Amino acid sequence: MQAELITIGDEILFGQTIDTNSAWMGKRLNLLGIQVSQITSIKDEREAILTALLAAEHSAANLVLITGGLGPTKDDITKHVLCEYFNTYLERNQEVLKQIQSFFKERGREMLESNNQQADLPKACTVLLNKMGTASGMWFERNNTVFVSMPGVPYEMKHLMSDHVLPKVQEIFQLPAIFHKTIMTEGIGESFLVEIIKDWETSLSAEDVKIAYLPSPGIVRVRLTSMGTEIEPLQEKVNRKAQELHQIIPQYIFGEDDISMEEALGKLLIEKGKTIATAESCTGGYIAHLLTSRPGSSAFYLGGFVSYDNQVKVEVLKVDKDSIEEEGAVSETVVKQMANGARNLLKTDLAIATSGVAGPDGGTDEKPVGTVWIAVASSTGVIAKKFLFEKNRVRNIRRSAMAAMSMVRKVLTS
Amino acid sequence: MQAELITIGDEILFGQTIDTNSAWMGKRLNLLGIQVSQITSIKDEREAILTALLAAEHSAANLVLITGGLGPTKDDITKHVLCEYFNTYLERNQEVLKQIQSFFKERGREMLESNNQQADLPKACTVLLNKMGTASGMWFERNNTVFVSMPGVPYEMKHLMSDHVLPKVQEIFQLPAIFHKTIMTEGIGESFLVEIIKDWETSLSAEDVKIAYLPSPGIVRVRLTSMGTEIEPLQEKVNRKAQELHQIIPQYIFGEDDISMEEALGKLLIEKGKTIATAESCTGGYIAHLLTSRPGSSAFYLGGFVSYDNQVKVEVLKVDKDSIEEEGAVSETVVKQMANGARNLLKTDLAIATSGVAGPDGGTDEKPVGTVWIAVASSTGVIAKKFLFEKNRVRNIRRSAMAAMSMVRKVLTS
Repeated sequence: MQAELITIGDEILFGQTIDTNSAWMGKRLNLLGIQVSQITSIKDEREAILTALLAAEHSAANLVLITGGLGPTKDDITKHVLCEYFNTYLERNQEVLKQIQSFFKERGREMLESNNQQADLPKACTVLLNKMGTASGMWFERNNTVFVSMPGVPYEMKHLMSDHVLPKVQEIFQLPAIFHKTIMTEGIGESFLVEIIKDWETSLSAEDVKIAYLPSPGIVRVRLTSMGTEIEPLQEKVNRKAQELHQIIPQYIFGEDDISMEEALGKLLIEKGKTIATAESCTGGYIAHLLTSRPGSSAFYLGGFVSYDNQVKVEVLKVDKDSIEEEGAVSETVVKQMANGARNLLKTDLAIATSGVAGPDGGTDEKPVGTVWIAVASSTGVIAKKFLFEKNRVRNIRRSAMAAMSMVRKVLTS
Repeated sequence: MQAELITIGDEILFGQTIDTNSAWMGKRLNLLGIQVSQITSIKDEREAILTALLAAEHSAANLVLITGGLGPTKDDITKHVLCEYFNTYLERNQEVLKQIQSFFKERGREMLESNNQQADLPKACTVLLNKMGTASGMWFERNNTVFVSMPGVPYEMKHLMSDHVLPKVQEIFQLPAIFHKTIMTEGIGESFLVEIIKDWETSLSAEDVKIAYLPSPGIVRVRLTSMGTEIEPLQEKVNRKAQELHQIIPQYIFGEDDISMEEALGKLLIEKGKTIATAESCTGGYIAHLLTSRPGSSAFYLGGFVSYDNQVKVEVLKVDKDSIEEEGAVSETVVKQMANGARNLLKTDLAIATSGVAGPDGGTDEKPVGTVWIAVASSTGVIAKKFLFEKNRVRNIRRSAMAAMSMVRKVLTS
């Protein structure tokens, strides 16, 4: 089954609001085996809304979810256009009115006439009570298509979807079973990955398993999908194909189902009972930030240093001054000393260090922008590796952090 | 003038990727006086692409910007469908081929046949050279409508838009003159700000200057816009009204034109010739990351500490062990000692320190999740302030960093 999403409101078109609602809805629908075939963002204008509704009704989708355009201010005309489209009229809903009144009373806020008007709802719809706000959901059915209009405020939409729309959709439609699995790879580019696993990829079609490659800096996600009538055989074959992939490229896989590198590394550190410290130069605290952005990080992350100035490398991390003078701060010797220094100071099992030319300035012929040395110190010694990333500063920082976490993962799993 | 955006790829429909490209494009087009009238996200399928192209060509838009579906893997069919739609064929572009070859050579990476094929481009299009990647931009014109196809990778799209598409669009279309200025405020909520500047706001309409308030955590952007036929008078009046606002609320303004807090603070530090260090507990390196994410930060940022574990606070930053035991790590005494410790160790003019309960766990009745102490040490002593943010960890880290930078700004400007 297919669904279409329509978002109404200038703020998305003007770029003032990023449309995160559609991604949330897409994910939730997908889990029920409903594929979103189109997302359309349109203006808060009669003509645009009517055109989008008509196109959706004539598409292959049987479910049309509309968000936005239901606030109490003047520019929200969605409700009136829905009446026009479904040939009905607004009628004050007493149950909704009471609920809006108690909503305001609970919050000690004064009610305006425009708030009362939020209880005026199309006669032809099934009203979906909104416990989180004052704009109700509206459920229409016509020509085998269900249309649901909801407010655009994310937590109100999520409440209506979870508590009303998704349960009702499951009840009404005969949904196929669908199973996805995403395998997270790092340390290999998309084209090389495709080349290495091409025989395995070819074997997927015989089992009706679809594949998609979703690349982002340093990471390629491999998503497997299978659809059918029962969930168990789908799970079995997708899991089996995923297992095969794990056997072909174990060194590149760091996790499944959209786990981040930092989360995967945190889990691995906890699993192995190891602690870690950071000594960052070119990454400027970004690795520390990633490691600490998830709850529970204090179990493995003790702390770190941002040794931006060479003086900090020498005085705090005890890097040898002569090494910096002779080989430069961006060198194997210095980055190894940084990692050892951090590990010794914080008495951790492991330490990561980075030193590089993030750019856009500071590059030389010998060490161009994008040159990054990364070291990992552990009980077995210290290893270091040189990378050449790119010209862009933000991306260099990002890729250095990814590469550093990748090196730690390899130390922990080898 | 109107534009439509089309994004191609299952990852947006499935909700695995949030469509941030469209918001960026919407904003940039808006600055040129071009309004996005529709955004459509569709599948990587021939039928869907053809339908969307046709609908866009028959809409009121004269500019259709298409992103996604141009990678080297099998599931990317956009290029072939564009050939079908524009009745043309693929031809290997030697200039692009050379550029792809040097792209791989520079990075020391091996090329695959699929990479060569990225130089096969529709004969009928104007090729837009992509310096950031291997998928070229393609510019088509038909029936007074311009169609541009670009890769979906954000930095590649942004490069093509900024360096090719937007300049060409300005050249070809007769666009009205438009002038925007955004004044960045922090430390005051939207409703309070509106109240303080209401007389000034009233004076805007007489001069045909429009205002928009754009709030985000800790920051409210005030955008002034004026449209006309010539740019100079627009600049004059918008700049004059902005100047008036600077005089009314100097204490809340940290910059103009979408400058970030960290960039504004960096500029201020350079201007005043001051250096800074960080000692972060709950923000876990995020302030260091923000300060170093812009080029030139080594001029004012010497380094910092992530003192996640209390042992690091005591042994590295020389925080008094008894203070931690008696008052807890999240306390005025400890955060002040952290700031002084960092400032003494790195011999900087200033130091920021943070210590708080980021959540979701670790809260108590006395110090609930969201409690954050921030200190700033300088030559005139050390000040500290307590905040109560929210339940969400990522937002607490973000808001703590914003508040810390705000405190430093006030120390520097008072």
